[in-house]
Amino acid sequence: MATIRGRIARRALSPGERLPSIRKLARDLAVSPSTVVEAYDRLAAEGLIRSRPGAGFYAVGVPAPLALAEDGPALDRAIDPFWVSRQSLDAAAGARRPGCGWLPPDWMPEAALRRAVRALSKADAAVLTDYGATQGSPALRRLLARQCAADGIEAGPEQIVLTPSGTQAIDLVCRFLLNPGDTVLVDDPCYFNFQALLRAHRAKVVGVPFTATGPDPDRFAEALAVHRPRLYVTNSALHNPTGATLSPRTAHQVLTAAAAHDLTIVEDEIFADFEPEPSPRLAALDGLARVVRIGSFSKTLSASIRCGYIVPRPDWVEGLRDLQVATNFGGPSPMAAELVLRTLSDGSYRKHLAALHGRLAQRRCEAAIDLAGLGIIPWIEPRGGFYLWCRLPGGRDAAEVARAALAEGVVLAPGNVFSPSQSAPDFMRFNVAQIDHEALRVIARALG
Amino acid sequence: MATIRGRIARRALSPGERLPSIRKLARDLAVSPSTVVEAYDRLAAEGLIRSRPGAGFYAVGVPAPLALAEDGPALDRAIDPFWVSRQSLDAAAGARRPGCGWLPPDWMPEAALRRAVRALSKADAAVLTDYGATQGSPALRRLLARQCAADGIEAGPEQIVLTPSGTQAIDLVCRFLLNPGDTVLVDDPCYFNFQALLRAHRAKVVGVPFTATGPDPDRFAEALAVHRPRLYVTNSALHNPTGATLSPRTAHQVLTAAAAHDLTIVEDEIFADFEPEPSPRLAALDGLARVVRIGSFSKTLSASIRCGYIVPRPDWVEGLRDLQVATNFGGPSPMAAELVLRTLSDGSYRKHLAALHGRLAQRRCEAAIDLAGLGIIPWIEPRGGFYLWCRLPGGRDAAEVARAALAEGVVLAPGNVFSPSQSAPDFMRFNVAQIDHEALRVIARALG
Repeated sequence: MATIRGRIARRALSPGERLPSIRKLARDLAVSPSTVVEAYDRLAAEGLIRSRPGAGFYAVGVPAPLALAEDGPALDRAIDPFWVSRQSLDAAAGARRPGCGWLPPDWMPEAALRRAVRALSKADAAVLTDYGATQGSPALRRLLARQCAADGIEAGPEQIVLTPSGTQAIDLVCRFLLNPGDTVLVDDPCYFNFQALLRAHRAKVVGVPFTATGPDPDRFAEALAVHRPRLYVTNSALHNPTGATLSPRTAHQVLTAAAAHDLTIVEDEIFADFEPEPSPRLAALDGLARVVRIGSFSKTLSASIRCGYIVPRPDWVEGLRDLQVATNFGGPSPMAAELVLRTLSDGSYRKHLAALHGRLAQRRCEAAIDLAGLGIIPWIEPRGGFYLWCRLPGGRDAAEVARAALAEGVVLAPGNVFSPSQSAPDFMRFNVAQIDHEALRVIARALG
Repeated sequence: MATIRGRIARRALSPGERLPSIRKLARDLAVSPSTVVEAYDRLAAEGLIRSRPGAGFYAVGVPAPLALAEDGPALDRAIDPFWVSRQSLDAAAGARRPGCGWLPPDWMPEAALRRAVRALSKADAAVLTDYGATQGSPALRRLLARQCAADGIEAGPEQIVLTPSGTQAIDLVCRFLLNPGDTVLVDDPCYFNFQALLRAHRAKVVGVPFTATGPDPDRFAEALAVHRPRLYVTNSALHNPTGATLSPRTAHQVLTAAAAHDLTIVEDEIFADFEPEPSPRLAALDGLARVVRIGSFSKTLSASIRCGYIVPRPDWVEGLRDLQVATNFGGPSPMAAELVLRTLSDGSYRKHLAALHGRLAQRRCEAAIDLAGLGIIPWIEPRGGFYLWCRLPGGRDAAEVARAALAEGVVLAPGNVFSPSQSAPDFMRFNVAQIDHEALRVIARALG
């Protein structure tokens, strides 16, 4: 393979030129003909050469340049809701990412995942080759129905729609419910990608100030009366970026206001598995009448297995299913659903979560101390998860600090990317599992 | 596990009730305590029981009913563009699906897929746990860039955007380019899901009569002048449902008309690997100026690994990338990209394709003879692939025939689901790899 590759790269073999016959090359290189056949097959699979039946192999041309070095994120991008995603998803290997929204690989259930992948290699051929059912794996939906029941939500497997990611779950609900120009409420601050997603739907985004116990109830009711929004999109369990938990009283106030204005609520539970004890769920209080439950497995199991789910009102299931057929020809990969099912059903998963809770509690404490040493102070102490929503010292501009840190290879998450009203210029979201001493040194220098 | 499951199912253990201690149950069942711990952990992972730290295990409740039997496709659905997808994706195990759009598992490269999955179980932890880059796996994009070069299309890896499926690739381009109310041209007949997808974008769909060498050039030019469409969405290589191939002359006429009306063309190459010899590509003739290339691996490699791609104009890459972050938080699963890359790079893949071509050529011939025996005659003889687009005898209504066959468990694809103008009532698309003698008997009875 190296011989032929070299000849093509040096243009000793021009595009369209015939390669040496298998017999001749085997003789020249003193290898067996079957070795040459194998090498030619692999080069053909790579597209470097092409076979013409009965006429041997031909060079295809010089491969496209390896241009990926120019492919990384630019340093001069606007600090907008895409800023953190671009920088953290496309960060160079080895870059530090205290701004990103997920755990490093060594915090994930690696052994259970490898077991699940090995078992998948022996699965029925249909799991490996076929499209899946329009609503996704029945077995995984049965497991999720039991989890719903444990959370006080009555929903059978037939009321659950699997999707290719948590983001796509929200996207599908937005497609189903929103018309261009509709108004959607979000928390201020909220997960930055809610804003990006809602912009893709041409929705008008209105923020409601977020308190340590949920959205400010008076401002929430006021926003409903003034803006008549179609949807409210929020995280419960542990709020992104603040780590705050909805209180029972605020949950009740939100639902009462929603009922008065016929508002639908999308409750994204993506951080639920990080809770030490369950907290109020809008979906449970409301009985899935006007609340749509959304979840995924990206934060505690794997972000590489793309799988999420929707638990909607029963009469919306068919419409969501059809919309998913139209836009994705079905739900998540059957392989992905199988890997999620196997990992969740693995006896070790509960231990993984318990260990994660303990390790994160310690890291949150250590990181808070380290950040306090730089004058960076958490807004609240979250009960769980990996986020600390912090105020920078002396009213420093978080966007400037993030740009300075990025120039040294450290990705941060400046407050205003989370704030529809741009009212968090001196805030920053930190991921405690992604902060190390080198990152802290860079942050210290960026603070100046 | 069976003991506890049984007690919960019989309600001998009520929701909230404490389970026997590990020591007690081990003694009662004469097994070791570690066996009980393992069983409790697995039941907890399934959501049947829950642990309270320091206080033992508790029953959660009776599991949700296994309601999936009611979950299958209804027999009385309208014959609309969703009809074939619903019926074929959700068909019961063992149902015959001559109407579906994919090959049975035993036609797919099963051994290579299993090798790729086994290799994946040893991949870097980041591949198994992390989000991927916003544009998707660099290595797979390099391979696709070489395939583009082999097809006469100059596009570096930086000009390729991986997506979670071929359908999502088209969906993303539609989101990027279409405004609600825009007009989009499709072939008449065309792949039914193009219509479903375009309806989800609130586009106005206009069909152009399709001939054995591509869209009718005069009617195409007329449609451009009258409807001023924003997009034309088509299959090249082997057209779905007809199996026809674009001629060089029609390709040139289409591009000339497109240039005169500033039309963008989405060229879906999903059946390209079934071609015995390459045919004209709009993207190659046009140099990706107004043609966007779309592809996936679902038909020849695996439909369970969800992965597709877009090769757009260079200046559209960033916008498509951002849109994909907003709506899916990145491209396809890194695991999926790795499985595609490994299988395509496997020396056996070229042989798999060659064998597939031979086997399908024979099946097309056999199926045409079998169908001719029922008076069902192919519109053309396709050069490759697995579709035969056929006229039913005596002007029989294909929707009626499809409903009668479905009642006997055979999924067919009646012509009008492919026809925006509903002008193919007596046509039917057959998948030659999914027809067997039992299916033929049911079709014969349905024809009456």
